[in-house]
Amino acid sequence: MRAVDIILKKREGGSLTREEIADFVDGVTSGAWPDYQASALLMAIVIRGMSREETEWLTDAMVRSGIRVDLSGVAGVKVDKHSTGGVGDKTSLILAPVAAACGVPVPMMSGRGLGHTGGTLDKLESIPGFRVRLSLDEMKSALAKTRCGMIGQTEQIAPADKKLYALRDVTGTVESIPLITASIMSKKIAEGIDALVLDVKAGSGAFMTSEPQARELAESLVAIGNASGVHTVALLTDMDAPLGHAVGNAIEVAECIDVMKGGGPADLIEVTAALTARVMLLGKVADSLETAHAMFDEAIRSGRALDRFRQIVEAQGGDPRIVDDTAVLPRVDARDVITAPRDGFVARVDAGCVGRAAVALGAGRDKVDDDVDPAVGIFVNVKPGERVRRGDRVFDVCYRDSGRLARARALLIAALEIADAAPSPRPLIIGEIAAPAAR
Amino acid sequence: MRAVDIILKKREGGSLTREEIADFVDGVTSGAWPDYQASALLMAIVIRGMSREETEWLTDAMVRSGIRVDLSGVAGVKVDKHSTGGVGDKTSLILAPVAAACGVPVPMMSGRGLGHTGGTLDKLESIPGFRVRLSLDEMKSALAKTRCGMIGQTEQIAPADKKLYALRDVTGTVESIPLITASIMSKKIAEGIDALVLDVKAGSGAFMTSEPQARELAESLVAIGNASGVHTVALLTDMDAPLGHAVGNAIEVAECIDVMKGGGPADLIEVTAALTARVMLLGKVADSLETAHAMFDEAIRSGRALDRFRQIVEAQGGDPRIVDDTAVLPRVDARDVITAPRDGFVARVDAGCVGRAAVALGAGRDKVDDDVDPAVGIFVNVKPGERVRRGDRVFDVCYRDSGRLARARALLIAALEIADAAPSPRPLIIGEIAAPAAR
Repeated sequence: MRAVDIILKKREGGSLTREEIADFVDGVTSGAWPDYQASALLMAIVIRGMSREETEWLTDAMVRSGIRVDLSGVAGVKVDKHSTGGVGDKTSLILAPVAAACGVPVPMMSGRGLGHTGGTLDKLESIPGFRVRLSLDEMKSALAKTRCGMIGQTEQIAPADKKLYALRDVTGTVESIPLITASIMSKKIAEGIDALVLDVKAGSGAFMTSEPQARELAESLVAIGNASGVHTVALLTDMDAPLGHAVGNAIEVAECIDVMKGGGPADLIEVTAALTARVMLLGKVADSLETAHAMFDEAIRSGRALDRFRQIVEAQGGDPRIVDDTAVLPRVDARDVITAPRDGFVARVDAGCVGRAAVALGAGRDKVDDDVDPAVGIFVNVKPGERVRRGDRVFDVCYRDSGRLARARALLIAALEIADAAPSPRPLIIGEIAAPAAR
Repeated sequence: MRAVDIILKKREGGSLTREEIADFVDGVTSGAWPDYQASALLMAIVIRGMSREETEWLTDAMVRSGIRVDLSGVAGVKVDKHSTGGVGDKTSLILAPVAAACGVPVPMMSGRGLGHTGGTLDKLESIPGFRVRLSLDEMKSALAKTRCGMIGQTEQIAPADKKLYALRDVTGTVESIPLITASIMSKKIAEGIDALVLDVKAGSGAFMTSEPQARELAESLVAIGNASGVHTVALLTDMDAPLGHAVGNAIEVAECIDVMKGGGPADLIEVTAALTARVMLLGKVADSLETAHAMFDEAIRSGRALDRFRQIVEAQGGDPRIVDDTAVLPRVDARDVITAPRDGFVARVDAGCVGRAAVALGAGRDKVDDDVDPAVGIFVNVKPGERVRRGDRVFDVCYRDSGRLARARALLIAALEIADAAPSPRPLIIGEIAAPAAR
């Protein structure tokens, strides 16, 4: 099987066989396929597409490029949650302790922020001492102790994905439903979970800005997950405005603690509760959505969620005092305020702009190896539909460097749209994809 | 201008600007564009295409990657001929001396054989002592002496083409009218000629097997040539059966000498005369096709063509005795014969199969750095439409190695098709493209 023949077949719009796809993935992993052949095939895949069957084989080959973690020693139905990424998207930090407190083992393998979207690992690392680089054995013992382990991708999990992603990033071959599906699902399948709840976001702050695209991605992810033996459901959620108020790292952790103390913003609670309820259903600790929502509320009200979060932080080397005193988290003193330029209704708080403003401040990264500042960030004080008066505080900006502030300010001013009439409300939960779409 | 943005633009089917195309070509030449980005863009170009304007800019950028030879010191209208490649395609070795003898300066930059098609350089090098690696100064002095210089591509001519071609060859991005056009025309424009006659072949032994594809390529080549100030015309010629009888290297040189002595196969003479007549018209030594054809015939009849060929061979270090005694050319003694399996009419002599049989014998190469055996080859004794009887000699095979012979025999047997009725005759000259097609 010659690489060129495989490339030519896809270039002409043909379907690749399982063997051809495995040859490509194994070749990329071993280096037998040089980068220039891999990128030519990736471009042909982006333009010509892949059938669901090809996507399944691609995912499987990527899983097989590394180990598939054996979590059979952990009792219960292991459930992870994965988000396609957003701005202020901090649901994992609440979902994991609540689900764990309610009896679901949650082995959670997360990523770092890139571009305008934040990453769970960066948020966790803003907790002094918190270690996300656990070995697989350490993760298993964390799971045994707290029913939760929150780690980054290890070298052993789907190494083909790491190589392919690095190549896609520099060759204009990122935007492809089959390639995105295989990238996400290979890592999730390899981590050894039984079930998966996906949060597929749509809107200006999401990877997929349009709802039909996001739905197509969700259907592809759910189909491949279920075909691979991982019980998978997806919620389609809105990411046109940031989720919650806080956008940054430490300030997002503090907001999650607020929620677990019974406070916090309504939109964040709504999306987190919906996702957590699905985790409880798949994890078989609740048998209806109503029961699951009641369990979510009870875990918070009783303080069990907060206790579990404290245990998780401690088990992974973090300073548990942050739970009781968020002032222990890194912070900056410099604050800047952006006010409403006129009276009216908030028509839009563009999540993409807010996310880029956070990156401008140093809370995120443009390039994979950029450093992240845990303390800086933005408080978004208004939500779409709210009435504002000229001079109202719209954004509070926590900054370290005034040069960076200037760029962030410009983006935040652009993010805000004020109109004379209230916009029609957008639902936060757009839809649910539970069964594989027909091929 | 980021490489990824240029790749994305073409991936989405957009048109690239002159600057973006120049950035790509300069980047490939300097190494600033890594291979994996170049191959991703090449694949996007193959699938999405390029407008005639983009093709013109691509060609221009590739010309500018090296020098444009200054032949203004050579009197007359300098005309080259270029063929897209075929089997038994030896017209250059007759055309060049005839045109030079009739007053047209012919600076001819040719290639080597690759795959089933032969190359003029390999044929010339079968002449003992013949040097095709002339410097540009040596070519100019050859032109001054004989009005002809036959050389290979130098490092200074369109270096971007060399890099791009090597990459296209291994990334499944060869088949693209814009990329092929830019590759051919950049070298032709850079060699400093005033006019160009193209022989674009269609059929099983050609690069473009279908006539519509070959016509599309011819129109693209003619348009880009004329847009770049090189007066360009193309003949579309048939390459479904080998041209002439001889397919190899030394045996093709001998066949050309036969033609210049007044003999030789009719099909070879017809195509060569048609191409040479266009060279004479563009070279302004004849003012009608009729005059040009008469001059062609006269150059042969008078012996001036043969004399000029002898001078050309001598000027480039070759042994001029080959002209009078082709036994001086390299030869093998071993001969094998393939006969007609039954009575009937020759329906087809598949040029692609015959070309691959010649490669199997060692007359051509599968890979760029393979060695070529100058002596081996095939005599094709029958032409489509001829009546044959069972046992008639169809192919004479001149071989060196009996292992190689076995493979060649199988291909030759497959090449021959005998039918009960004569096939409808195919014209050798299918069409002429003289003016740029409308954009």
